[in-house]
Amino acid sequence: MRFTSEQRFDDGVLEREFVLGEIPGILWTPAPASAPAPLVLVGHPGGLPTMYPRLAARARHAAAEGFAAATIELPGSGDRPRSAAADQARADLRRAVRAGEPVADEVVDRLVLPLVDQAVPEWRAALDALLPLPGLGGPVGYSGGVISIGVRLAVVEPRISAALLFAGSYVPRAIVEEARQVTIPLQVLLQWDDEGNDRQVALDLFDAFGSAEKTLHANMGGHTGVPQFEGDDANRFFARHLK
Amino acid sequence: MRFTSEQRFDDGVLEREFVLGEIPGILWTPAPASAPAPLVLVGHPGGLPTMYPRLAARARHAAAEGFAAATIELPGSGDRPRSAAADQARADLRRAVRAGEPVADEVVDRLVLPLVDQAVPEWRAALDALLPLPGLGGPVGYSGGVISIGVRLAVVEPRISAALLFAGSYVPRAIVEEARQVTIPLQVLLQWDDEGNDRQVALDLFDAFGSAEKTLHANMGGHTGVPQFEGDDANRFFARHLK
Repeated sequence: MRFTSEQRFDDGVLEREFVLGEIPGILWTPAPASAPAPLVLVGHPGGLPTMYPRLAARARHAAAEGFAAATIELPGSGDRPRSAAADQARADLRRAVRAGEPVADEVVDRLVLPLVDQAVPEWRAALDALLPLPGLGGPVGYSGGVISIGVRLAVVEPRISAALLFAGSYVPRAIVEEARQVTIPLQVLLQWDDEGNDRQVALDLFDAFGSAEKTLHANMGGHTGVPQFEGDDANRFFARHLK
Repeated sequence: MRFTSEQRFDDGVLEREFVLGEIPGILWTPAPASAPAPLVLVGHPGGLPTMYPRLAARARHAAAEGFAAATIELPGSGDRPRSAAADQARADLRRAVRAGEPVADEVVDRLVLPLVDQAVPEWRAALDALLPLPGLGGPVGYSGGVISIGVRLAVVEPRISAALLFAGSYVPRAIVEEARQVTIPLQVLLQWDDEGNDRQVALDLFDAFGSAEKTLHANMGGHTGVPQFEGDDANRFFARHLK
């Protein structure tokens, strides 16, 4: 991992861009404290340059509670090489949605499963690189982003102690099955009237999670309309489980 | 309304038992403040003597945030005269549940609709009696209890500005339809694995509410296992809407 730029904000948060091999990423650390900061991995749908304002806002909100935050670009997004197969699957999905047709399971599988298979080892490699840094340490949380990536990470990565998942993308049936193996505390956000999302699959996924502590927060406001108070509640969720 | 007893707790909260006609009730008011306290109506499934410890805990938790709280006994419960028809409907419901059979809509209707029809005017009469009291005033919230009573109150009682509802009892289909008329901010608690409750009806009810701001919080832990953190969040919900 190599840092490529840094800036410090008025609130004391240090933002550092890095590359991990060919993968761009960003690390935000709160003003130095006596104890190492727990780390929240900030998920997103892909495209760091576009997503940056929202990601930085989430990270600085977490930093205000003493958490470090980090993200990396997803395969095929932002400045990373595109995948012809993923582009084709995305086009097929959009065509079905525009035509008002149900999205075929095989289209969802073609779009999401290769992404999960490639992204999850990258996020784990990012953890390997980030956790030894000075000021970082302690338990790790995963927040938001492509929910199928969060599910797989929660299953395979023992350093992740709690996850706040956003049920806002299509989920392969295989991932719903995989969710039965998840046992860490979860908070799942669902935008109830999100037209680009299958509400019933989201509810099936929530039902499938094996965690003894799992909470579903459903709100109105469309895909991008998650209420402000959920940001505060995300901090409280991570404070309960990472501190 | 006539007060029949009072006690003051260490935290400054004044608890007063009262009767409203033949209906017993309890009022909790926080330590006197400069502004009138918003009032939270504390719902319950019926049976004040049995429910008292939990109700008092919820009321004092609300009082710590500056809210007054009040409750009244439900028709047919506690020390009030029983209803033979309601007892029969309850027995029919229990028989179906024990036999593992679906509970017939007409049983739910017989149990819940007369209760709603009788209880709602009583809670409105309680508001008439309570709101003029010194130290009370401002907007009113409704919290918990038989959800069908909460739905009807939210439709017909304009003094109620926000409601935190507990989806933990059988809901007549007519009440699901009535819910479309609700427009106040709502937070709905659902215990996901509550075996004495129909999860799909609860989700249909949440979907039906006409409110632009409605939030569903689903948790694990069975009917009585609502997590502690939901109590704190209930205060934050009312603080957003009653202050």
